[in-house]
Amino acid sequence: MLSRIFARTLDVHAHCDLPCGVYDPAQARIEAESIKAIIGKLADNDDPDFRTRAVIIKEQRSELVKHHLWVLWTDYFKPPHFEKYPQLHTLFNEATKLAGATGTKGSMDASVADDLLAKIDEIAEIFAETKKG
Amino acid sequence: MLSRIFARTLDVHAHCDLPCGVYDPAQARIEAESIKAIIGKLADNDDPDFRTRAVIIKEQRSELVKHHLWVLWTDYFKPPHFEKYPQLHTLFNEATKLAGATGTKGSMDASVADDLLAKIDEIAEIFAETKKG
Amino acid sequence: MLSRIFARTLDVHAHCDLPCGVYDPAQARIEAESIKAIIGKLADNDDPDFRTRAVIIKEQRSELVKHHLWVLWTDYFKPPHFEKYPQLHTLFNEATKLAGATGTKGSMDASVADDLLAKIDEIAEIFAETKKG
Amino acid sequence: MLSRIFARTLDVHAHCDLPCGVYDPAQARIEAESIKAIIGKLADNDDPDFRTRAVIIKEQRSELVKHHLWVLWTDYFKPPHFEKYPQLHTLFNEATKLAGATGTKGSMDASVADDLLAKIDEIAEIFAETKKG
Amino acid sequence: MLSRIFARTLDVHAHCDLPCGVYDPAQARIEAESIKAIIGKLADNDDPDFRTRAVIIKEQRSELVKHHLWVLWTDYFKPPHFEKYPQLHTLFNEATKLAGATGTKGSMDASVADDLLAKIDEIAEIFAETKKG
Amino acid sequence: MLSRIFARTLDVHAHCDLPCGVYDPAQARIEAESIKAIIGKLADNDDPDFRTRAVIIKEQRSELVKHHLWVLWTDYFKPPHFEKYPQLHTLFNEATKLAGATGTKGSMDASVADDLLAKIDEIAEIFAETKKG
Repeated sequence: MLSRIFARTLDVHAHCDLPCGVYDPAQARIEAESIKAIIGKLADNDDPDFRTRAVIIKEQRSELVKHHLWVLWTDYFKPPHFEKYPQLHTLFNEATKLAGATGTKGSMDASVADDLLAKIDEIAEIFAETKKG
Repeated sequence: MLSRIFARTLDVHAHCDLPCGVYDPAQARIEAESIKAIIGKLADNDDPDFRTRAVIIKEQRSELVKHHLWVLWTDYFKPPHFEKYPQLHTLFNEATKLAGATGTKGSMDASVADDLLAKIDEIAEIFAETKKG
Repeated sequence: MLSRIFARTLDVHAHCDLPCGVYDPAQARIEAESIKAIIGKLADNDDPDFRTRAVIIKEQRSELVKHHLWVLWTDYFKPPHFEKYPQLHTLFNEATKLAGATGTKGSMDASVADDLLAKIDEIAEIFAETKKG
Repeated sequence: MLSRIFARTLDVHAHCDLPCGVYDPAQARIEAESIKAIIGKLADNDDPDFRTRAVIIKEQRSELVKHHLWVLWTDYFKPPHFEKYPQLHTLFNEATKLAGATGTKGSMDASVADDLLAKIDEIAEIFAETKKG
Repeated sequence: MLSRIFARTLDVHAHCDLPCGVYDPAQARIEAESIKAIIGKLADNDDPDFRTRAVIIKEQRSELVKHHLWVLWTDYFKPPHFEKYPQLHTLFNEATKLAGATGTKGSMDASVADDLLAKIDEIAEIFAETKKG
Repeated sequence: MLSRIFARTLDVHAHCDLPCGVYDPAQARIEAESIKAIIGKLADNDDPDFRTRAVIIKEQRSELVKHHLWVLWTDYFKPPHFEKYPQLHTLFNEATKLAGATGTKGSMDASVADDLLAKIDEIAEIFAETKKG
């Protein structure tokens, strides 16, 4: 089951700055899913030490989301992409803001994590289209 | 297309040590794919500065493979899993060795990256089975 | 020219994601200056171990340039800025690309470092203008 | 005094992935001692900001324990060791879990730190035996 | 006062361990400014999750101050400097302590951040003098 | 055997900035031993990719030596120590320089690693004396 998913996503990832040519929006999405799960656990728990741990980890995961998205924006997408998808710059800027102080770093609200996931999915769809080209 | 893949993998990832409950072997696999691509580019290129960059990045990506696999082995898999799949310990030990000095860190050979990918896929299949349970 | 920009921005730096409100393009510029100096030393030196060290450090400094610029783009600049300076998105995208594989990471050419410095200065001028507002 | 201790431990450490051949369970133990000391200070202190700092640092030190142990398990120990000491896999898996969410990351209980230290000592004794061989 | 120092040091920064020859006390100062701003925001806010975030970031920024100062002390300053400015060792030791547990890491007091900034300025003045030589 | 060494060193280590009170010069020494071993392997090997890996790792280990020593100098040693051991500042400055560009980072010479180890031992002896007090 999973191996089929892997098989199908094989040609869509790439991400280092050699560049190796492997990029995958899944990296940002996995971290954002983690953030959503953390916020879910925060809602159920008043223990201050647990909350501290949750906030620490949410901070780190949000930073990873920002990083993975920045890499896509700078390293994967090229001028022709920005011409074809003029909304891309704003999409990335909004998505990374949604993982920052005014987003999942600063907020304990699950709907903010949902907004972040939705933005990542918008980016992932454009990414997938550019891969088909 | 990609959004469907995402939709289906939604329940299979989890990975932070809160724990958030999100783990995904895809994280290790993406890095291993990157390593394979880097080795491919090394084979085609004799420029010493380019090779240096490739070796630096291959070193980092291999370390990330090790880290993502270690997290699965320690944080995701529990005693009942190790009872049901007695080969798991050896599988993880071999897979992480394949990303180390005797594996993709030390080697410039594409077949070593293939071996690493195959081991990650073996782990991913067991992981997927435990998710269905 | 630049020294005036710096002089004027002295009280306006801030950069963490609390946010503390302190941002400063000088952080990116210092790293870019370092890259330029490293490339200068590479040109004078054929010792392979020295070159390896230089490439390692150039890789790290370039990554820091990217990071500092991404932080400015996502955390400091707000929608009204992007409206007033419609070139900002492209400027940041080009500047971060200039610190990547097709820029100072991949190149040993001093003119690439100069291009990067020039882009950072363009950003710094806009940054300074927004501070005066 | 200390220099004699150093002199005697000289041949038992090694740890990088060149590999340099230097490994030492002391690295994990020092971090675990630190965790125990932190938990001791947490017990005496209700200041929320101090507790936050303690939890942050305990999180980092626990991660270091996990990392140092993973390195030993993957990089130092070889198949013949696992044959001779069949309990090694479980020992490492339990030790790293004891430094995770269900161990010293999640717990403020000194006995958990003691359990972690005891596991590290068990590993260190096997390590020392393999060095004598 | 300080702006003049910065203005004068513009062409004199350098900081990596190639060494590239670029050092700049501004790196430590920017982080210390950030710490001061964070402490200001802590004073105005009783939300425990916000305080946790502030303490996390203050911890990181303080570590960066220490790191940037250590780099100056070890990599930039040479024996003749220590002869000419015999107070330098103590100055750096006190400044880095002021960014540690007994300084801005452990304290929520704005005056501690001011003390740290003042020490950095003392170092920056000596740094600027050595550049003029 | 090793457990006795551990038992005896138990009270001499401490190192985080809570502070937990655990410091141990062994941390710097283990990294310096690693550097010496790496240099030994460099001497025997002309493969450029292997040399690149060795230089990368030597760079990282040297940085760790510097970091561990800086932590001791700033966090463990207090004004009364510096009064009693007036050579301490110079000792730490020289030791950290020996792990930098003019030391084990820039050099492939085993004697430089020996000099670094000797300096660390000098520091360790003073450290041990202060522990007895």
